[in-house]
Amino acid sequence: MKDILKNLLDGKISVDEAESQLRVNEFQELGDNVKFDTHRKQRVGVCEAVYSKGKTDDDLVNIINNVEFKDNLIITRLDESRFNRIKNQFNDNVLEKLTFYKEASILTINKKEIEKKNLSVGIITAGTADVPVAQEARITIEQSGYNAITTYDVGIAGIHRLLNKISFLVENEVDVIIAVAGMEGALPSVVAGLVDIPIIAVPTSTGYGVGEKGFTALFAMLQSCAPGISVVNIDNGYGAAVNAITILNQIDKHK
Amino acid sequence: MKDILKNLLDGKISVDEAESQLRVNEFQELGDNVKFDTHRKQRVGVCEAVYSKGKTDDDLVNIINNVEFKDNLIITRLDESRFNRIKNQFNDNVLEKLTFYKEASILTINKKEIEKKNLSVGIITAGTADVPVAQEARITIEQSGYNAITTYDVGIAGIHRLLNKISFLVENEVDVIIAVAGMEGALPSVVAGLVDIPIIAVPTSTGYGVGEKGFTALFAMLQSCAPGISVVNIDNGYGAAVNAITILNQIDKHK
Amino acid sequence: MKDILKNLLDGKISVDEAESQLRVNEFQELGDNVKFDTHRKQRVGVCEAVYSKGKTDDDLVNIINNVEFKDNLIITRLDESRFNRIKNQFNDNVLEKLTFYKEASILTINKKEIEKKNLSVGIITAGTADVPVAQEARITIEQSGYNAITTYDVGIAGIHRLLNKISFLVENEVDVIIAVAGMEGALPSVVAGLVDIPIIAVPTSTGYGVGEKGFTALFAMLQSCAPGISVVNIDNGYGAAVNAITILNQIDKHK
Amino acid sequence: MKDILKNLLDGKISVDEAESQLRVNEFQELGDNVKFDTHRKQRVGVCEAVYSKGKTDDDLVNIINNVEFKDNLIITRLDESRFNRIKNQFNDNVLEKLTFYKEASILTINKKEIEKKNLSVGIITAGTADVPVAQEARITIEQSGYNAITTYDVGIAGIHRLLNKISFLVENEVDVIIAVAGMEGALPSVVAGLVDIPIIAVPTSTGYGVGEKGFTALFAMLQSCAPGISVVNIDNGYGAAVNAITILNQIDKHK
Amino acid sequence: MKDILKNLLDGKISVDEAESQLRVNEFQELGDNVKFDTHRKQRVGVCEAVYSKGKTDDDLVNIINNVEFKDNLIITRLDESRFNRIKNQFNDNVLEKLTFYKEASILTINKKEIEKKNLSVGIITAGTADVPVAQEARITIEQSGYNAITTYDVGIAGIHRLLNKISFLVENEVDVIIAVAGMEGALPSVVAGLVDIPIIAVPTSTGYGVGEKGFTALFAMLQSCAPGISVVNIDNGYGAAVNAITILNQIDKHK
Amino acid sequence: MKDILKNLLDGKISVDEAESQLRVNEFQELGDNVKFDTHRKQRVGVCEAVYSKGKTDDDLVNIINNVEFKDNLIITRLDESRFNRIKNQFNDNVLEKLTFYKEASILTINKKEIEKKNLSVGIITAGTADVPVAQEARITIEQSGYNAITTYDVGIAGIHRLLNKISFLVENEVDVIIAVAGMEGALPSVVAGLVDIPIIAVPTSTGYGVGEKGFTALFAMLQSCAPGISVVNIDNGYGAAVNAITILNQIDKHK
Amino acid sequence: MKDILKNLLDGKISVDEAESQLRVNEFQELGDNVKFDTHRKQRVGVCEAVYSKGKTDDDLVNIINNVEFKDNLIITRLDESRFNRIKNQFNDNVLEKLTFYKEASILTINKKEIEKKNLSVGIITAGTADVPVAQEARITIEQSGYNAITTYDVGIAGIHRLLNKISFLVENEVDVIIAVAGMEGALPSVVAGLVDIPIIAVPTSTGYGVGEKGFTALFAMLQSCAPGISVVNIDNGYGAAVNAITILNQIDKHK
Amino acid sequence: MKDILKNLLDGKISVDEAESQLRVNEFQELGDNVKFDTHRKQRVGVCEAVYSKGKTDDDLVNIINNVEFKDNLIITRLDESRFNRIKNQFNDNVLEKLTFYKEASILTINKKEIEKKNLSVGIITAGTADVPVAQEARITIEQSGYNAITTYDVGIAGIHRLLNKISFLVENEVDVIIAVAGMEGALPSVVAGLVDIPIIAVPTSTGYGVGEKGFTALFAMLQSCAPGISVVNIDNGYGAAVNAITILNQIDKHK
Repeated sequence: MKDILKNLLDGKISVDEAESQLRVNEFQELGDNVKFDTHRKQRVGVCEAVYSKGKTDDDLVNIINNVEFKDNLIITRLDESRFNRIKNQFNDNVLEKLTFYKEASILTINKKEIEKKNLSVGIITAGTADVPVAQEARITIEQSGYNAITTYDVGIAGIHRLLNKISFLVENEVDVIIAVAGMEGALPSVVAGLVDIPIIAVPTSTGYGVGEKGFTALFAMLQSCAPGISVVNIDNGYGAAVNAITILNQIDKHK
Repeated sequence: MKDILKNLLDGKISVDEAESQLRVNEFQELGDNVKFDTHRKQRVGVCEAVYSKGKTDDDLVNIINNVEFKDNLIITRLDESRFNRIKNQFNDNVLEKLTFYKEASILTINKKEIEKKNLSVGIITAGTADVPVAQEARITIEQSGYNAITTYDVGIAGIHRLLNKISFLVENEVDVIIAVAGMEGALPSVVAGLVDIPIIAVPTSTGYGVGEKGFTALFAMLQSCAPGISVVNIDNGYGAAVNAITILNQIDKHK
Repeated sequence: MKDILKNLLDGKISVDEAESQLRVNEFQELGDNVKFDTHRKQRVGVCEAVYSKGKTDDDLVNIINNVEFKDNLIITRLDESRFNRIKNQFNDNVLEKLTFYKEASILTINKKEIEKKNLSVGIITAGTADVPVAQEARITIEQSGYNAITTYDVGIAGIHRLLNKISFLVENEVDVIIAVAGMEGALPSVVAGLVDIPIIAVPTSTGYGVGEKGFTALFAMLQSCAPGISVVNIDNGYGAAVNAITILNQIDKHK
Repeated sequence: MKDILKNLLDGKISVDEAESQLRVNEFQELGDNVKFDTHRKQRVGVCEAVYSKGKTDDDLVNIINNVEFKDNLIITRLDESRFNRIKNQFNDNVLEKLTFYKEASILTINKKEIEKKNLSVGIITAGTADVPVAQEARITIEQSGYNAITTYDVGIAGIHRLLNKISFLVENEVDVIIAVAGMEGALPSVVAGLVDIPIIAVPTSTGYGVGEKGFTALFAMLQSCAPGISVVNIDNGYGAAVNAITILNQIDKHK
Repeated sequence: MKDILKNLLDGKISVDEAESQLRVNEFQELGDNVKFDTHRKQRVGVCEAVYSKGKTDDDLVNIINNVEFKDNLIITRLDESRFNRIKNQFNDNVLEKLTFYKEASILTINKKEIEKKNLSVGIITAGTADVPVAQEARITIEQSGYNAITTYDVGIAGIHRLLNKISFLVENEVDVIIAVAGMEGALPSVVAGLVDIPIIAVPTSTGYGVGEKGFTALFAMLQSCAPGISVVNIDNGYGAAVNAITILNQIDKHK
Repeated sequence: MKDILKNLLDGKISVDEAESQLRVNEFQELGDNVKFDTHRKQRVGVCEAVYSKGKTDDDLVNIINNVEFKDNLIITRLDESRFNRIKNQFNDNVLEKLTFYKEASILTINKKEIEKKNLSVGIITAGTADVPVAQEARITIEQSGYNAITTYDVGIAGIHRLLNKISFLVENEVDVIIAVAGMEGALPSVVAGLVDIPIIAVPTSTGYGVGEKGFTALFAMLQSCAPGISVVNIDNGYGAAVNAITILNQIDKHK
Repeated sequence: MKDILKNLLDGKISVDEAESQLRVNEFQELGDNVKFDTHRKQRVGVCEAVYSKGKTDDDLVNIINNVEFKDNLIITRLDESRFNRIKNQFNDNVLEKLTFYKEASILTINKKEIEKKNLSVGIITAGTADVPVAQEARITIEQSGYNAITTYDVGIAGIHRLLNKISFLVENEVDVIIAVAGMEGALPSVVAGLVDIPIIAVPTSTGYGVGEKGFTALFAMLQSCAPGISVVNIDNGYGAAVNAITILNQIDKHK
Repeated sequence: MKDILKNLLDGKISVDEAESQLRVNEFQELGDNVKFDTHRKQRVGVCEAVYSKGKTDDDLVNIINNVEFKDNLIITRLDESRFNRIKNQFNDNVLEKLTFYKEASILTINKKEIEKKNLSVGIITAGTADVPVAQEARITIEQSGYNAITTYDVGIAGIHRLLNKISFLVENEVDVIIAVAGMEGALPSVVAGLVDIPIIAVPTSTGYGVGEKGFTALFAMLQSCAPGISVVNIDNGYGAAVNAITILNQIDKHK
């Protein structure tokens, strides 16, 4: 939005053009089943994202090839085999701009270079199995220009190891911590007892028996004795990242 | 069995009667062979216990006044107001032997002096609200002659405080730790990461929202990343204590 | 540690004693290294809080009268009848400093004047029944010196009314929005579709039938299509406020 | 039923024939495991439908080839691969009358032309993943002769987009709206706040984590603050359509 | 919007101020475009309703005495003891217009005479315990001017009795049936197999054991083999009635 | 049906009227054909029963005083305090025929003497807290004229005691065993491993923590490794008794 | 058992031999993981059954080839593909005695001819998808020598059809009815309202959405208003049959 | 730890070296996603274990080939097909030390010979399907040097069989019993009624219908009437073994 206003001030566009650009119909319709929010980056400050689950291959290829996005695009929950199956249907202008992140199951298609910003999010995981969710968060944050500082598999069973890693994040002056954990989900509680930084907890669906679906971790995080933690849906690394970005955006605005 | 078969041959009973008598006989023989539990109370070292919930006042008074227990008796989950309501119906020989533990909601009636044993259980709670459950465990352990070394309200939010308290239990050479916690139930996981002693975790029904009934704490404890923890029912301080006592008895037997 | 080893070499202690002392020493060293939380209260800017549920009246009065808190104290979930029952046991120096907030069920005891800070949180509720939870958040935020700008009972059924209210929050330049809702819990989703500010969603246990305990609202908020929302426990206005405060603190630090 | 009465009045059939036709055994037995309600259309006004799940391929082919249905037949939840597997066993008279709807997983076999009726149902979905359920509803409605006016992927995050689409349905004078949504299921609540038309809400099993099975959407719809919404089973597009048809039938009867 | 842009060009406001003003403006424009619900109450034909649970007595009396409702008001879930407690605080103009329905727990305050309409809803209950919920629906329907034809305690165990009662509703030409049932919730399924009228099923929280909260009835109704049933929340007689009224309104519009 | 058709032909009624009359006629004919349950009570041998929960005091007194039952009446789930509250409103002819069973919470009003039958049901409970449910079953069985042979509080922890008690039931030649248990609900499984008699398992809502509502006992019974067990609802002693009576009736019929 | 007693009376065996045969170790051990109850038929009157799920192919072949069963054997939950995979490992003496029932997923290996008994069980299903469970019950009953009279897919939506089919079972003088239903599970309630025969209800895991796992049907059956119904585990046709057989055995004993 | 101290006493290492060895960083980092606790055996007395689920093949091979473990390693939940897929990537020094246990799904890599200890754990299972979980416990115990005495498939339906097997464990003087059961999970309750040894109950996810996921067994075990039982997560044979080992270690220390 600021760009439009600056163009107006610089005389590059007229008042009418500015109004028109500001008012432009914000949704593009792609066939019958898909509508697209092309101005979202402006409103929410996060680049447009497409959750690939529940969409057919045709829907997905259609979106990727045809959306007139002005900025960058991120496709989440796209596993490697599906990416390989559909990528040969991508247009050339898509192919030259895409990056596929196997561990995070994310595909990015960047039309513009990402503008680097000088604020960081710390991402910490309890176990190795939580890494894909953490990576989903990491890529999303990096797409927004912020830094992601990660430390994985820190557990809570070895308090030495944990203390060192949290110390590492504090030294790096992260402004938000995303704490990812499955099983009993105790990591965010322990971290929140040690630092005074906003913590976004992400339960994961790792484990088995009573913890099979991630509900134990979710409920433990919501029920934490350590206030200051907020929680997102099970396995929702993307959501945690967007939440962190909106926080960093507020910090950035006030700097 | 032979008698029955001979009566059949002698025509004293019919085939149908023989069949029916053999069936009854089968249970009696099976019953007579059960030698396991005859002396259980003595060996287990846990005095006779009565769970007062679900029993009418009449049932309870009747048990307390009339059971010819040879040893000591423990009545659990007896809150103060109920104790006050029924105590005037107790016989004199009961009245002179009873002790009521308000915080633990336990009534003991000790006919014999408790024989002191030289082994200890550590009891640790996450919060103040977990204390009644911990006290139920403590009294039960002390009734068995073992020592209970307690440290309450240690939380996991202040790692400093927690380490000191665990240090205190280790110095006291406890052989089992009972870790009592509600809310997110993370305490046993953290303790289990620091010591090599068997840990019995007791979830409590403290908290609210998603943790209201204690299921979050229960599931978190069952799902703990730190192996070596076993768990009892929500609020079951008595059960944790009996489990601890059976372990100490085994140690005692081998000393 | 060296002392222990030397004592071992000098024959002052046995190998077993050395091992035991080394274990205790390990926790103490670990404990001494924990520097994270020493000054937490000051830095976090959240005054000391006591959750009154699960504590006996005696415990509560004891805490209120005797804790040597240097700063201010907040007692949460203290309903009016309990406050009236226990207040005559308060010391004089407590009585002259306390304020009771009936709707929020909060008691504050402020030893120091609260330092005003120039950042704001917006608090919005779907219905009238959500107000006590919102007020718990408001008082907690105001105790920290930040502003709370509230607009209650905005619903989602009247889109006109909702848009005006969000407009009101945006005009007031709030940096975080706490959105409180029971029933189907749709309010945070709708708000998150309209603004680019971090949203902390608080489900409430209002309603009946399938929504009786607040789980429908909780799950709807976690499952929201609108990314950027994070969630706290059912009815946890205090937790939402602390989360908001940690965010504002980060903004404040960077200003 | 009216046809029989008119034939009686026109002298085409006698009183006895009329009675006989009215009384005719309404169920046809197909082998041991299947019984068929051939007069249903008359009683309920919806053409005969077969739910294909839980039936073996043999049962299904048997029904399709042998039922002496006088009207049209609809087979639901028949995915494309199963249709392709069994279609070569269909009789010729079936093959020339069938239409397969891939997206809706519906097979229709129409013996009679559908009589068009001048009333409409609006069908609206929150996301792209909800489209198959919406299409199941659409085909069922069109089989009954009514119009289905659809608008898919309207979300609730972009209020502009949603308002335009609801406006579109109101302009088309739909008499019932079927609102299909997964995730947090907030769409029907928002729609019900804007229009005064009966709304049938269909939760879908899209999403993940706490919303995985569609229960969050179901409970949110049942718990909606906006009265006037009724709900059908998760993913039950067919049931929503039949409910809508019975409403339109009542309107039609009174016209 | 143009004014803002011009002020920017004229240097009266900065880019930041322009951006902020444009954001506020966006909601206001959106709000102004919402024409849908302006006249909703009149068109929907459902008088203004207040759900009394979760509101304090003060809130309730305040609403009843002071809201300038133009039409009639209905207060739901107001049990007799609460009504008696608060009624002496009502203004005189309220007192002369109110009617309290004890069985339905409804209070009506009618400023205008209700306009009678010539369409009917049938209300049927499985048991005696379902009657309060049915009465809530009945009063709500009668407040809207439509007829409610009721038949209670018909069960499904006596098929004779049930058939007579359904016959009675059909004779009275009801256009919608509200079927209220707790326990196993089978009534709507049986009714739906016999008639071709839209059926709104209301589960009730009667019963005990596995059916204690009404979820068994709710799920049975959602899962009914008999298509054409839609369902509202447990005990939600009011919601069922509003849904029925919106259907009758559509019929009325087309007559 | 012919009359309607003739009236149509004679012009006395229109086609629409004929259709409507035919629909009503359809239910009446169906109803007239239902001969199954006319004499049910006599044949089933279970006297008329009224479940008192969910009925108002007025409803209950009305039923008790006015129903022209030909046989005997049983009122279930009527606790002592409610019985005392309503009994002074009973008619004299009721008062002289009633018996109140405090432990079973049952009131019987017997107009005829109960005809004794020579078959027996064994009733066995795991604990003392299960006795009220067992007594509900016992009184119901005795009302039907059959014998109930009871043995309570047999547990499964003392195998000796259990074997003796089962032996006692086998000696008494019971034809059905009702096994009542809360907590982990293992009693029916153990019994079913020892005898070849049909077993009706009744879970009870005794216990606490994970077993609080009786679901653990219910699920354990349904999931029993020992085939031959069938189960009724939690606490449903009455249902178990009726099930047992229908079995004994079949035996009686064949004798 | 009777056979042994008769042999004793006939002088074919001595008292010692009789005692020995009666006492014989009843369990045969097959490798480390399997023990086998070879005398079960005598005690419980149902032929030995093996639940094939959870056993490896090796375990299963081992049991089938090596058990020294004196009577007949039934293997349940053995689907066709698994049967085909393992059957070539069967011994010749097994192969000549086996029958595989595809629809019931049952394999029988009959060493003795089944002795026909003159009592019957009625089996009724709500839908086609319930047939496999019903067939599991049918084969089990026929293995015991009793008659199974079946009528499938009777639904509750077409009351005509249902009445005819129940009438058919009553005419055939069945002594027990097994009622099998998924979805909303209403069939047993409706049947129990019409007949005075013991009813064993079997919920099935057919359906989708809220009924996906069969819990809706299970809970509806347990919660039935029609007393006299007892229930077995979801899909447990075998358990229902064994329960029915124990009932018929009691009838048979008394004839 | 003792080894280091002894080396110090023997003059093999200096005080500084001892301190350094005791302090050594206990965690080895393997790439970004895995950290390894190499000193765990010393602290907890159980050899290092890796839970293979949730780790990629690459992670797993990396750990197995590169960890500088000084002692033995155990990989759990590694099914045969996965073992076969990855084993050709193992280093030679791994290959010559590994043993794969198919039934237990465990891979051990033993660098040192296991030191035999003279204490035993009894392992008992209810059924054949519980054997894999029991074997996971057995191998883990044997890795620690203790004895595992097993008896599988003892059920509770045949009390004879069960009594013999428990008698067998008692004769072998086991100090802890691990009781593994699925379905209704009654085995630990029955065992606990007969012996005075600590019992660790392991619920398994065998069964179907209401017991499908193992929750029925878990809850039954937690809810057991027989105190002295503690419980681990569903299918968690490894956790039960570690808990047993910590108990035996305490006994061993005191001998």
